[in-house]
Amino acid sequence: MLESLENSPLYRIATPRSIALFGASNNILSMGTPILISLKAMGFDGAVYPVHPEEEHVQGLKAYRSVLDLPEVPDLAILILPARIVPHILDECGKKGIKHAIVVSGGFKELGGEGVTLEKELREIAAAHNIRFLGPNCIGVTNPYHKLNTTLLQYLGNPGFIGMASQSGSFVTQMFHYLANFGLGFSTAFSVGNEANLDIVDCMEYLAVCPHTRVIALYIEGIKRGRAFVETAKAIVTRKPIVALYVGGSDTGRRAGLSHTGALAGPDPLYDAMFRQAGIIRARSITELFDFCWVLGALPLPRGKKVVIQTHSGGPGTEAADFCGRAGLELPSLSAETINKISPFMPKTSSVHNPVDFTFTKNLLDYFSSIPSLLLEEKNADMLLIYLLMPMETVKSALEHLGIPEDQADEKTGELLDEQSQSIAKALKTHNKPLVGYTYRSTQEDFIRSLMERGVPVFPSTERAVRALEALVMYSEIRGRITDNTEHGFSTGRGAS
Amino acid sequence: MLESLENSPLYRIATPRSIALFGASNNILSMGTPILISLKAMGFDGAVYPVHPEEEHVQGLKAYRSVLDLPEVPDLAILILPARIVPHILDECGKKGIKHAIVVSGGFKELGGEGVTLEKELREIAAAHNIRFLGPNCIGVTNPYHKLNTTLLQYLGNPGFIGMASQSGSFVTQMFHYLANFGLGFSTAFSVGNEANLDIVDCMEYLAVCPHTRVIALYIEGIKRGRAFVETAKAIVTRKPIVALYVGGSDTGRRAGLSHTGALAGPDPLYDAMFRQAGIIRARSITELFDFCWVLGALPLPRGKKVVIQTHSGGPGTEAADFCGRAGLELPSLSAETINKISPFMPKTSSVHNPVDFTFTKNLLDYFSSIPSLLLEEKNADMLLIYLLMPMETVKSALEHLGIPEDQADEKTGELLDEQSQSIAKALKTHNKPLVGYTYRSTQEDFIRSLMERGVPVFPSTERAVRALEALVMYSEIRGRITDNTEHGFSTGRGAS
Repeated sequence: MLESLENSPLYRIATPRSIALFGASNNILSMGTPILISLKAMGFDGAVYPVHPEEEHVQGLKAYRSVLDLPEVPDLAILILPARIVPHILDECGKKGIKHAIVVSGGFKELGGEGVTLEKELREIAAAHNIRFLGPNCIGVTNPYHKLNTTLLQYLGNPGFIGMASQSGSFVTQMFHYLANFGLGFSTAFSVGNEANLDIVDCMEYLAVCPHTRVIALYIEGIKRGRAFVETAKAIVTRKPIVALYVGGSDTGRRAGLSHTGALAGPDPLYDAMFRQAGIIRARSITELFDFCWVLGALPLPRGKKVVIQTHSGGPGTEAADFCGRAGLELPSLSAETINKISPFMPKTSSVHNPVDFTFTKNLLDYFSSIPSLLLEEKNADMLLIYLLMPMETVKSALEHLGIPEDQADEKTGELLDEQSQSIAKALKTHNKPLVGYTYRSTQEDFIRSLMERGVPVFPSTERAVRALEALVMYSEIRGRITDNTEHGFSTGRGAS
Repeated sequence: MLESLENSPLYRIATPRSIALFGASNNILSMGTPILISLKAMGFDGAVYPVHPEEEHVQGLKAYRSVLDLPEVPDLAILILPARIVPHILDECGKKGIKHAIVVSGGFKELGGEGVTLEKELREIAAAHNIRFLGPNCIGVTNPYHKLNTTLLQYLGNPGFIGMASQSGSFVTQMFHYLANFGLGFSTAFSVGNEANLDIVDCMEYLAVCPHTRVIALYIEGIKRGRAFVETAKAIVTRKPIVALYVGGSDTGRRAGLSHTGALAGPDPLYDAMFRQAGIIRARSITELFDFCWVLGALPLPRGKKVVIQTHSGGPGTEAADFCGRAGLELPSLSAETINKISPFMPKTSSVHNPVDFTFTKNLLDYFSSIPSLLLEEKNADMLLIYLLMPMETVKSALEHLGIPEDQADEKTGELLDEQSQSIAKALKTHNKPLVGYTYRSTQEDFIRSLMERGVPVFPSTERAVRALEALVMYSEIRGRITDNTEHGFSTGRGAS
């Protein structure tokens, strides 16, 4: 385990003070240009030196004919150039004294043949100059806290708590928008490409000590340093959870990965064993990878695997109950104490079984304030799962029928929904237990967005919500916090690593 | 199999000409009132007769003291009343000569005890008067083609092609919004509740002959008439696909269902066997239920299980390849013919393996027009899966850098994206092969929405897109269209019934 960020070979790659940029021009269609645009859009405040054989200025910045002409030795070189000339340029960077690089260019080992030779050459040049580099065939780094984004796409949303190391650049850049939709963001994300020099293990070590990173996401097509990977992860998970998506376990996935980054994959059971040994939680998909990161970064850990489901609709309650059962989660009966406390809120048609099905609420406001608080107090349960349906148009229509004029109904509806969202967020903060919502409404509706922005994870699917709770339980077990194992010991239904 | 809709006992429940409504009032908080509001909002154009013991008018309609006072015998009675008085009112309806009813009220078998007795009484009264009814403990019917919606929530979006029979009312009403987000809608949806008289099998028979229904969705907590269910489904699936979500297979799901609708569930293997025998495709979640219905209703059937993946990003391509492998789908190599035809579009860094990874496109427009068409022509493949990333802001920024003024860039971007969406939709129509998209952008963005509205299913997750293709293959096999079984015969990885 690193003692500090500064000791990581990635330190000046993720937090450079100055950058030499090769491959940007005034032509928007050359791949380097959008990278310079992203860098500027993010507001990077160090010096950026475009190096270009002909241009005097590139995107408004003074350009240099050669790296050797730069007025200082930049912390980092970013190369977006045809593969054939990359070794020569990296050599010049070394001569200038540059010690860190990102090689974005593709056309190396992943293409086979001559590409393999070129990659070997690159490694030798780096070794000769003591250069540590990411790539080739990667898109580099996004560190929104440092206003750094070396990728093709512009960063969106706020800096967040998810640290990522990915063998796909797309799963960094194309997640900016995706994560922002849930109010999430990266702390720092690395695209490692072909891992000719720095690899995913180096990134994990960096993220382990990164103060903004609460949870580490890995996208894996194949691991090279298996032993180091396991040992590093084992040390990290005592402090931070790690979630991994591994796609090389099927024959088709293995072949696709080989042609993508030249990764050598192994069969699923091998990786399952490795993840289990390392204490890494395996996700089945990109969706799950970030769902798991969300709850692991945002919520307290549960002490056990007992869930209370709060619903006002039988179907969504039953679907959740079924998923909980399949995931190895338990639905305890409510204690007599809780039943006493919630009974004033229960209409005649309701059920105090678990799922607690209110069928409807006498007072809509209770559903989001008094009730969740009382259910979070339940001593028999470790987590609360709430079905959230709050159709803006229904609330508005109800208000109008109560005589509130249409022009005021909009505003009043907004206020009402905002109060509800505040209540739920407050219940989560007050009680030290995980609370997760699920809904089939769009997660982009005001009510759901405001919940997410207040730190309450809400999933647009029952299965995703339950699987996320399962991930919390898995990590609790990894951290040794679950001691009340039942007769079968702890086991989850599917996909547990 | 019914010969026509008119022969179904549900005919005048789904297409009534006139309705007697019990339980609506001028108080928005009484449950019958929003039902009357939904009915009016949908534009139902038959007569509606509110029956109310005191009010002269209900929601602007003339009210009647008793059903016996109505000026005609309505086709349908809808009862939203306290359970205790329901038998008496149903008896009065019988005396009036009404032959069809929807009993929305809860408080019957699902509560046990006295509720069981009340439900028995209800059945006896119906039998005495030859009344066929849906419920109790249901929300009735939505038939947007008939402008009928007897549920609590207002129908949203257009009439569609999904016919549904559901043991949860929420999975009818709370899906209006969900389906509309994908440009989908119900043809007719039935909430069957406790199934004291009409049941899910009756609904299936109706939907089988409903001309607007292209695919049937079932939400099941427990089946009563097992043999009839299997025989009916067997007959239907030769014409229309049936997809079912069954949630009673786990212990927690079984118990939740019992307290929801009093359903008696059985273990998963029993239902799996029943579904397999019946030719029903089993979905794992509500999300999957409607994903499967979407592609089964919108796309032609594949002749085999070979998929071509088109991507410009390695990670999403590899993730899709992995899911295809796990789903038992195959990724054939491209034929020399196709490779020749697409090679002019392939940049140097690209891969003509499958996934066909363009890494980037020389001309963005090709990615959505020439390329999908050429890949759909591939004789070795049965389906096309396209990764769709078309960030509006990137296109706009590129246009601006090409010198198009900012105020024109918005419009130009919109035009460009619309052309792309048209190209893809055209490729789907021209070639008789399924084409499905997937993306991690919001499916509510203009580009994706316009694809969905043009009949191209686009999923916000790789797994969901691949599982949807798997459902197409399953139904092709059920219809006996796949004859080229490989050495292992046809088998899908998970979840196949």
